[in-house]
Amino acid sequence: MYSIGIDIGGTNTDIGLVNENGTILERCNLKTGSFTDFECYVQAVASEIKTMIGRNNLSLSDMEGIGIGAPNGNYYSGCIENAMNLTMRGVLNARKEFAKYFDCPVVLSNDANAAAYGELIYGGAKGMKNIIMFTMGTGVGSGIIVDGRLLLGSTGSAGELGHAIAVPGGRTCSCGLHGCLEAYASIRGILQTYREIRAEHDALHANDPVKEGWIDPSISINEISCRNLGNAANQGDPLALKTFAMTARYMGIAMANAVAFSSPEAIFLMGGPAQVGDPLLIPLRQAFKENLLYSFDNTCSIQMSQLNANDVAILGAAALIKMK
Amino acid sequence: MYSIGIDIGGTNTDIGLVNENGTILERCNLKTGSFTDFECYVQAVASEIKTMIGRNNLSLSDMEGIGIGAPNGNYYSGCIENAMNLTMRGVLNARKEFAKYFDCPVVLSNDANAAAYGELIYGGAKGMKNIIMFTMGTGVGSGIIVDGRLLLGSTGSAGELGHAIAVPGGRTCSCGLHGCLEAYASIRGILQTYREIRAEHDALHANDPVKEGWIDPSISINEISCRNLGNAANQGDPLALKTFAMTARYMGIAMANAVAFSSPEAIFLMGGPAQVGDPLLIPLRQAFKENLLYSFDNTCSIQMSQLNANDVAILGAAALIKMK
Repeated sequence: MYSIGIDIGGTNTDIGLVNENGTILERCNLKTGSFTDFECYVQAVASEIKTMIGRNNLSLSDMEGIGIGAPNGNYYSGCIENAMNLTMRGVLNARKEFAKYFDCPVVLSNDANAAAYGELIYGGAKGMKNIIMFTMGTGVGSGIIVDGRLLLGSTGSAGELGHAIAVPGGRTCSCGLHGCLEAYASIRGILQTYREIRAEHDALHANDPVKEGWIDPSISINEISCRNLGNAANQGDPLALKTFAMTARYMGIAMANAVAFSSPEAIFLMGGPAQVGDPLLIPLRQAFKENLLYSFDNTCSIQMSQLNANDVAILGAAALIKMK
Repeated sequence: MYSIGIDIGGTNTDIGLVNENGTILERCNLKTGSFTDFECYVQAVASEIKTMIGRNNLSLSDMEGIGIGAPNGNYYSGCIENAMNLTMRGVLNARKEFAKYFDCPVVLSNDANAAAYGELIYGGAKGMKNIIMFTMGTGVGSGIIVDGRLLLGSTGSAGELGHAIAVPGGRTCSCGLHGCLEAYASIRGILQTYREIRAEHDALHANDPVKEGWIDPSISINEISCRNLGNAANQGDPLALKTFAMTARYMGIAMANAVAFSSPEAIFLMGGPAQVGDPLLIPLRQAFKENLLYSFDNTCSIQMSQLNANDVAILGAAALIKMK
């Protein structure tokens, strides 16, 4: 059997045809942002899917199901609920709309949940039963697997660890709360940490010499990306290293707290900032260890996602079909 | 059918014979502290149970099972693992020892898990599927129910929210970590908060008039109990009120973070400090609301346990028999 994975993002919708082994046989995409009407959008996506299936000499009866990962995607209701980064507004009943075009099961969840489930079915968590996925990017998302099943809770929206309070009364988050993990460990949060560290540094040591690969102090701070910071940290830039060390502390504590909650056997990490490697991962593992209750010592590893960054969204969405 | 609930505490072991409706038909107790050998202890407990069953004109075949709540009780292994407050040391295989005397299933978990499960089967959470129980006392414990099942995780020790970090780098906890919720919201933590508030106050306003029911400043601070503080708070003592307001803030944030994790429909609260009522509960609900992600607004209530404080440990232990 085959499945279709759809990743609905604010800019692009990525669609993939996936086989039983988790190989993406073909993929295509649509500009999500060019649609304001959800029915028209689903019609266009459905048409792409049908063409793709035909091109691969398959038919609709070969499809086990259609899995969709979307911001604010709710498994129970099958709706995308007021996603702020979509041009299509309100509550969008994805399951119902897609069912107009396909007989097979249509399953929806949010993107971080899909990533966690994808890791479980196709990635580094194969054979595990209790894991947590943290996704670092524009925001900080999470997906939690308990006893082999996605933790959905009473609302279907469980697993929002990016909006657990990391610093009581701390930075204002995009959600309006104060001190969320996301306000510190998202790309925006990391850049803010860098700005604070650099302002403090520049006040005292503005003329310190800068080595090759470090961030040139003449570059406007607003032009520095998280990728620039990551490269500089890997070249030994002390301010960039300090930035990732602080980020790592928040993430490490959040992960230790997550272990106190659900005692997973592994925590997975993905997303742009996580790609920086050692400057983040070494202090992260240290902070994790320092803040973990002794009874959990050596019970949970921190691992990078083993799915290819370009594939994870489609594979995660496709994996949702396997949910019991 | 009937069941036996056993609550193993550091000082006392409480044993109850429980009917299908959650009524304790008879109870008795033993001094846990007078035993150093676990086999002798289990023999004595088993003898009490058999006598109690006979006295009620029942036989062992009427027993659905034996449920045990114990510090560090692990459901998977059936062992009490290095509980610091027991005179019997090491890893105690409770399931194995009790099985020598009884044919029926013997189920073990920690006391907070048992309390959560008791609330689900016999208390205010009947019919619910996703809840969290917080127990405030010498420590802060928690038990988490997901989809009607106790969350145990890969180790069997999930649900240690008292040792999630509430204040990064904060107070040293009895477990050795820094900033655990327990270091702020246990009885010891609450008294420490009071001492800090009073020291700050006394430095400036030592001679302010004190009203009836407030804590007399001539009383040595070490003689003040959490119950004294609760009574004073309910009489309007401003320092006691401030103490519970601060405690409430930590608890409210911890509860909001717990909702971001598992999205329960209700959070239950029990234990001595929770009995203080409004001085704790009003600011707690306020802090919960202020720190809760908007998408969870009005999805989770905070409630006091509906089980009698004298019964909850036995009923919780007995309820473990119902675990699927």
